[in-house]
Amino acid sequence: MKTGLTYDTVALNEAGDALLIIDQTKLPNEEVILALKTQKEIHDAIYLLQVRGAPAIGVAAAYGVYLAAREMDTQDYDTFAKQFHDAAAYLNSARPTAVNLSWALRRMEDVVAEAKNCSVAKIKELLKKEAEEIQEEDINICRMIGEYGLTLIKKGDGLLTHCNAGQLATSRYGTATAPMYLAHEKGYGIHVFADETRPLLQGARLTAYELNKAGIDVTLICDNMASMVMRQGKVQAVFVGCDRVAMNGDAANKIGTSQVAILAKHYGIPFYVCAPSSTIDENLTDGSQIPIEERPGEEICSMWYEKRMTPEGVKTYNPAFDVTDHTLISAIITENGIARAPYETSLRKMLEGKKGHKMQAE
Amino acid sequence: MKTGLTYDTVALNEAGDALLIIDQTKLPNEEVILALKTQKEIHDAIYLLQVRGAPAIGVAAAYGVYLAAREMDTQDYDTFAKQFHDAAAYLNSARPTAVNLSWALRRMEDVVAEAKNCSVAKIKELLKKEAEEIQEEDINICRMIGEYGLTLIKKGDGLLTHCNAGQLATSRYGTATAPMYLAHEKGYGIHVFADETRPLLQGARLTAYELNKAGIDVTLICDNMASMVMRQGKVQAVFVGCDRVAMNGDAANKIGTSQVAILAKHYGIPFYVCAPSSTIDENLTDGSQIPIEERPGEEICSMWYEKRMTPEGVKTYNPAFDVTDHTLISAIITENGIARAPYETSLRKMLEGKKGHKMQAE
Repeated sequence: MKTGLTYDTVALNEAGDALLIIDQTKLPNEEVILALKTQKEIHDAIYLLQVRGAPAIGVAAAYGVYLAAREMDTQDYDTFAKQFHDAAAYLNSARPTAVNLSWALRRMEDVVAEAKNCSVAKIKELLKKEAEEIQEEDINICRMIGEYGLTLIKKGDGLLTHCNAGQLATSRYGTATAPMYLAHEKGYGIHVFADETRPLLQGARLTAYELNKAGIDVTLICDNMASMVMRQGKVQAVFVGCDRVAMNGDAANKIGTSQVAILAKHYGIPFYVCAPSSTIDENLTDGSQIPIEERPGEEICSMWYEKRMTPEGVKTYNPAFDVTDHTLISAIITENGIARAPYETSLRKMLEGKKGHKMQAE
Repeated sequence: MKTGLTYDTVALNEAGDALLIIDQTKLPNEEVILALKTQKEIHDAIYLLQVRGAPAIGVAAAYGVYLAAREMDTQDYDTFAKQFHDAAAYLNSARPTAVNLSWALRRMEDVVAEAKNCSVAKIKELLKKEAEEIQEEDINICRMIGEYGLTLIKKGDGLLTHCNAGQLATSRYGTATAPMYLAHEKGYGIHVFADETRPLLQGARLTAYELNKAGIDVTLICDNMASMVMRQGKVQAVFVGCDRVAMNGDAANKIGTSQVAILAKHYGIPFYVCAPSSTIDENLTDGSQIPIEERPGEEICSMWYEKRMTPEGVKTYNPAFDVTDHTLISAIITENGIARAPYETSLRKMLEGKKGHKMQAE
């Protein structure tokens, strides 16, 4: 499927000595590609949200720690392994809550641990390969989610999405946007409503931007306008991404997602969660166990870091995510297929599919 | 009941030669009282939303057209009546959609029409009296809504409101905020969640500001966080204002209101609409007949008139109001009592109460 961006969200440059990212804090006003070489530059890019979205952060960290390894000039395995571990720990500290960051770095550390008998030069090769694989897997997962999601879309449908689970949050295609890109490519004539997604406006700044670039008919609305467009019959399905799914199907995603789900249910519109199987958490029985990041109130008091819009001293409450009850979710789309209620059973199958893939890969 | 503002939203000054308003475009960063004397100043203050909220606009227009009359130096009735009509038409052009603007000006014009046999000096006296009455009525209506609304609040309740139906939208007390001010005065220990209300942030800038000033425990949330606080059990009732109510109970109010109502229903929380009986429209059988103002897309593309946050060329949809289905409304609180379903009958009674009041007044 084709997307509208002429660059990857995150990539290794041709010379193999720099991490290229689009600076997402500058979008949509400026398209600035950053070439990051030092560990501090890569760490800070993650910390400052210049690269964001759990899958994209994972890929950035994998390439990032490879670049660190590349610069290490020892030939001694133990020295190398120690330096590598320190580099991984440093990158991991950039955003401790993003699960894909530690997951990707753990995969890279596993490569070093398993290559004890290889030369350092060989290990560096293996690390580059692993980072490339992590990125390749991410692209394939999104592509599969797109294929499965497409089966849920009809020609001429109006679709609604919340936040950015797009190409800019992954290596390519996105999760919630993958079915949209595919539908567009196949000439389905879809129309997308993008919730602006307060407070950080990922919908307005990123989703509207990337869908617009791809030539998809996209309309920006404020979060509080979703009921209106649904009531008017303009929305046939909702597709959103997610950060973590509990085994009963409760799904945590960007704040506001649960209320879109309630509206969709009220109006009888299917509500689909697009979830790489890596986001399904086998250890959690329901959504109440998912920790919710609470962010600084300043984010909702000062608009886009410029002009204060609330009086000093007003209390704020700024949760960054919320949990959508499984009873509100029509289906959870993974790269291994579409899970429906009861999720206790269907999600298990998705995870078995994941293990199956992995076994094939090994 | 006590509010926290040390000024009226709109008032005549002591000398009786200027209209005093708080400039709402400067809130909450600056509290600037404007003394408006010329017709252009008054017209522009309404047009630029320096004074806003249907009841407050009505009062401003009544005083405004009185000030125009005061400056007319003819003693001839016909000349005076013509000049007065022109002045009213000029103010009425400031915001053609605000129903209270034309309603208040029509009342002022009626005074002139009925005083054909009076001297111009006497008519000017009567006009001042009528404007004062319009304001006094507005204050009493809000006070009564507060009394009725209070019966629906329990000690320690968490309340949620959307947009600003507060003192800043009326002469005093507000509509949705009146029960809150009263509950606070009586030591109910309430806690209020204020939706920020995109795109123009009346909740963040005005409601949070005025409740905070009154010492009410208020917490600002983004519109998309309402589901979260409701799910957490922090909200026991929702109070909102309204712009127009159809006879079946469908109520138009600031965009986003209908989705708060859907959330409230989902979580089993009562949803109350506070409506002066002047907002009940006898001519409309249901909400589909209420015209919805659509505002410029720029409002949702550029934040607070400073930094553009969406790419050029993205389509927008920016309805300023939406209609809340009567099935989602627990009760409609007017100055004549509390109406419940079926609204066809109960709203009739509210209107009869209004006529009864009027007859007493006459």
